[in-house]
Amino acid sequence: MNLEVKLMKNILGANDEIATQNRKIFSERGVVVMNLMGSPGSGKTTLLEKTLALLADKIKIAVIEGDLFTAKDAERIERAGVDVIQINTAGGCHLDAPMIQKACAALDLDAIDLLIVENVGNLVCPAEFDIGENFKAVVLSITEGDDKPLKYPLIFKESEVTLLNKIDLLPFTNFDLRAACEDLTTLHPTIKIFETSCTTGAGLGEWAEWLLGKAAR
Amino acid sequence: MNLEVKLMKNILGANDEIATQNRKIFSERGVVVMNLMGSPGSGKTTLLEKTLALLADKIKIAVIEGDLFTAKDAERIERAGVDVIQINTAGGCHLDAPMIQKACAALDLDAIDLLIVENVGNLVCPAEFDIGENFKAVVLSITEGDDKPLKYPLIFKESEVTLLNKIDLLPFTNFDLRAACEDLTTLHPTIKIFETSCTTGAGLGEWAEWLLGKAAR
Repeated sequence: MNLEVKLMKNILGANDEIATQNRKIFSERGVVVMNLMGSPGSGKTTLLEKTLALLADKIKIAVIEGDLFTAKDAERIERAGVDVIQINTAGGCHLDAPMIQKACAALDLDAIDLLIVENVGNLVCPAEFDIGENFKAVVLSITEGDDKPLKYPLIFKESEVTLLNKIDLLPFTNFDLRAACEDLTTLHPTIKIFETSCTTGAGLGEWAEWLLGKAAR
Repeated sequence: MNLEVKLMKNILGANDEIATQNRKIFSERGVVVMNLMGSPGSGKTTLLEKTLALLADKIKIAVIEGDLFTAKDAERIERAGVDVIQINTAGGCHLDAPMIQKACAALDLDAIDLLIVENVGNLVCPAEFDIGENFKAVVLSITEGDDKPLKYPLIFKESEVTLLNKIDLLPFTNFDLRAACEDLTTLHPTIKIFETSCTTGAGLGEWAEWLLGKAAR
């Protein structure tokens, strides 16, 4: 085992310990946590804005925004009227459990039903780090292509739900919806799939309803 | 300095040494190397197919394909009739210099003018690793949104050229082309920008011409 592998194990071990602590605290405080992942530009922040608009009067939601730099996304989410904490990774490619632990110190967890963590835009690294969430969700936009589940399998295996987003652009692409759904269920037989568009509103009601069910469990 | 930072420095130091060796070999053999980066689904492989079709009778090109898993992209490129080596990172989020060194052992560098390395689909990690290339290029698709240069600045600072790809989808998005170009040139004043579409063919001729100039230098 070379140094790089050994260190990665140390890093992941330390991360998992804090993730377990986070999970315990979330459970004690009655907060359900979703780790929302996807490529840059898959539409995570816009989807989040629409989701907040649909759910904000039904449950108490807070958001943690992960970005390399800038607070652009946090500023957008703040306009939806929910508490939001921005984490800047200063170039780092994913959020980890210690970052979430620190961010949560600034949140009143007792006043929250659902905490949504929007991870750094990246279809690879975020899937490897447990942050103490209850479940992971991945947004795949139609314009990214139907080959992505097999090319980036870990994130789809780890996620309880996939949102096939920007579904309104389907007619302008060669995306094979049936093939993508087959690949997704091959990778992850129980995966839940929603087809959504933040432009037309398609699928957003069903998605929000499902998320509400998760938060109320 | 904690263990994680220390190790990252070791990893990068070892990588940079081999990148320097790679660069020396490429220079001796007269091979120009482009490191092609971008998000998953930004259109790198399709752009590469179109580029090969335009340039294959003018210069000798070989391709190294980086993917986490599968040889799907290498199979597509092979159909274009050029030599292609697939690197599977087994989940790793970027290509590094040792991977390129190994892959090049299977290529006849003396018979190549231009080596194109298609990196793993990721707008973060590949930008941090020198592989010994002459220049980096980044593909940003219109559907990813105009906020990406400021949110992922390193990759745009590091790249000599940005391809604003899927430009045919501009009318169906709220992408602000002028704002994106302004942000790109603020980050990187000498950056070259092409607007391309592999669906309509827009911009591909100018891009191929520019690349030909780089390879012939």
